[in-house]
Amino acid sequence: MTKGKQPTSGEDALIARYFKPLATDPGAFNLGDDAAVLKPSGDDIVVTTDAIVEGVHFLAEDPPDTVARKALRVNLSDLAAKGATPAGFVLTLALRAADDAWLTPFARGLGSDAGLFGCPLLGGDTVSTPGPLTISIAAFGRVPAGKMVRRSGAKPGDRVMVTGTIGDAALGLDILKGGPVAAALADDAGARAMLIGRYRVPQPRNALAKAVRNHARAAMDVSDGLAGDLAKLCGVSGVSAVIDAPSIPLSPAAAALLSRGIAGIDAIVSGGDDYEVLCTVPEDSFEAFVQAAGQAGVAVSSIGVIVAGSSVPSFLDGEGREIALPRLSYSHF
Amino acid sequence: MTKGKQPTSGEDALIARYFKPLATDPGAFNLGDDAAVLKPSGDDIVVTTDAIVEGVHFLAEDPPDTVARKALRVNLSDLAAKGATPAGFVLTLALRAADDAWLTPFARGLGSDAGLFGCPLLGGDTVSTPGPLTISIAAFGRVPAGKMVRRSGAKPGDRVMVTGTIGDAALGLDILKGGPVAAALADDAGARAMLIGRYRVPQPRNALAKAVRNHARAAMDVSDGLAGDLAKLCGVSGVSAVIDAPSIPLSPAAAALLSRGIAGIDAIVSGGDDYEVLCTVPEDSFEAFVQAAGQAGVAVSSIGVIVAGSSVPSFLDGEGREIALPRLSYSHF
Repeated sequence: MTKGKQPTSGEDALIARYFKPLATDPGAFNLGDDAAVLKPSGDDIVVTTDAIVEGVHFLAEDPPDTVARKALRVNLSDLAAKGATPAGFVLTLALRAADDAWLTPFARGLGSDAGLFGCPLLGGDTVSTPGPLTISIAAFGRVPAGKMVRRSGAKPGDRVMVTGTIGDAALGLDILKGGPVAAALADDAGARAMLIGRYRVPQPRNALAKAVRNHARAAMDVSDGLAGDLAKLCGVSGVSAVIDAPSIPLSPAAAALLSRGIAGIDAIVSGGDDYEVLCTVPEDSFEAFVQAAGQAGVAVSSIGVIVAGSSVPSFLDGEGREIALPRLSYSHF
Repeated sequence: MTKGKQPTSGEDALIARYFKPLATDPGAFNLGDDAAVLKPSGDDIVVTTDAIVEGVHFLAEDPPDTVARKALRVNLSDLAAKGATPAGFVLTLALRAADDAWLTPFARGLGSDAGLFGCPLLGGDTVSTPGPLTISIAAFGRVPAGKMVRRSGAKPGDRVMVTGTIGDAALGLDILKGGPVAAALADDAGARAMLIGRYRVPQPRNALAKAVRNHARAAMDVSDGLAGDLAKLCGVSGVSAVIDAPSIPLSPAAAALLSRGIAGIDAIVSGGDDYEVLCTVPEDSFEAFVQAAGQAGVAVSSIGVIVAGSSVPSFLDGEGREIALPRLSYSHF
C-alpha cells in the first residue's frame, strides 16, 4: 500500500482514504512505503495467516463491518490460542470494484477491532478481482522466547478445556441459509440475532492468552469444528481423548435447539467457526488456570481428559455411550 | 495449515502432501500448528505482502510453477528494495479445486525458489473459492535495526538508479495477449520467450540488498511502472526528478521494438511488472554503489537525477524535450 503526495492511481487514493487512518503504528510508515517494520523486543514473533472468501467464509449479504471484523478476528483467535499478544497485521484485499458504500463500513469495522485488540494495520495490498471478495490477513504476535503454546504438548491425564460456548456459529449460519434452525426460531428474534452474531463476529479470546501461556500444555483455536480440531491436536501430540458431551458448553439457544431435536450434537461439535480456545491443562494447573481465566473474564469449561492412544477422540453421551460422528469438521477439499 | 497423524480432511492431506516438504524452517513446526515463530535476532523484521490474481496478475494458461515463483518473487523484490535479507513467508491459496496436475508443479516451483532465495515457507491457509485462483503471500526479512531503506529519503542531487532492464515484462504480456508485439516478433522465438519469461518469472534483486542498504538514500521496487513508481518515491520524499529516457536500460529486444516503433517509450516506462530496484544514491556514494552492485552481479544504470520541487518527474528524450506520458502506471481501480 502506498500513498504519495502525487497519487498516481485510484488504488493509491483508495488506500489513502480508507486505510491510512488505521495505520497508527510507527512501523507502518503511514502505508507510504513498500514494507513495514516490526521492532525486535527479544520476544519471539508469532505469525499466523487466514483468508476468508465471500460465499465460503462469509455471505455476500453480511454487513461489511462484520466481514472486516471476522477477517481480523479469525487471525486474532490463533494468536490467543498460541498465548501471544497481538502486535499488528497486514491485509490483502481482492475487490471487484472500489465501492465506497462497502469500503467505508469495512474500514470502520477493521479500525475499530484493530484498536480494541491492540493490533494495528501495518501494510497490505489492494488488488482487483473478477471473482468473489477475498480478504487475507497475516497477523503477528509476541511471546517470550520459546513460550508459544504448541498443539503438540498434550499428555495423558491433562484436562481438555474449551472457552465460551460451542456450536452457535454453525447454528447462526444455518439461520442465514434458511435451514431448519431458521424455521425453529421464527418467533425468537433475540436467539436468531445472537446466533447470527456468533457466526458473523467471532469473539477471539485474546484476554486469555497469558493464562494459556502460563498453564496450558497444548492449545489451538476451534475453527473447523471441535471434534476435528481436537483430533488434530491429539494427532500431533500422539495422544487421544475422551470427551463428556454433556459437559460441552452450550448457549441457552443451542441447548434448547439440541433438546428439541432441531440440531444434533454432531452438528454442534463439527460445525466450525467457533473461534474458541481449546487447550489441555495438567491437573495440577487446573485450579490456577480457572482462576486466571476468571480474572480475564473468559468462561472456561472442562469437557474431558487426554488419554494414551492414537485413535480419534471419543465423544460420550450422558450414559457413557460413544456418539457416532459422521464427519469431524469442515473441510475445503 | 495443519497436519495431524489423523488427517481429518482433504485440506490437511493437501497441505501434508504438497506444502509440508517446503516447511524446512524449525519455526514452521512442519505446518503442524496454527502459527509459526520468527526468532528474534536483534534485527528489525521487515514485513511486506502482495497478492496475485488469475486473469489480473497472471494468466490462466501460465505454467503453475511460474505462477508460484511470481507470487513469491514479487514479495522478494520488495524485500530486496528495502535492503532486507529474506527470512520466510506465509501463503494463502484460494483454489477452485485440489487439482494434482496444478498443485504438483506449483509446489515444486515454490519450493525451488524458497530454497534459491533462502526464504522458507513458514505457514499458510488453503481455502476454496468459486472464483479465480488467488495467491497472497506475506514475506519477512531482516535488516539491522533502523536500517530499512525507505521510499522517503531521496534528496536533490541524488542519482536515480535502476537495476536490470525496464519494459520487458509489459512487452511479454503484450505477446501473451496477442498484441502488436506478438505480430512483430512472429519470426523471433528467442525474443518472444525472453520477454514472456520476464513477465512470468521476475528476477528479484535480492543480491543487491546489502548494497542498497549501504548506499541508497531511498528505494522501492518497480512493480506498477517506472514512471509511476518514481513519482511515488519522489512524492513521499518531497522532491522531483529529471530522467534521461535514452539512459533507461533496455534489453536488445525492447530496444529493437522501440526503434521499429512497435512499442513506445511511454508503454515501456509505465507498463509495470518489472520488479527491478529503483533507488537514489548520493553522488559521493555512486562509485561505491556501482562497485558493490558489480560484485553482487547485478547490472545498475544511472538514469537521471533528483531535483527540488513537487512536480511529477520529467522524462526527457535525446534532444532534451519532455516526453508526454498519458498514464504513469498500472492501477487496479
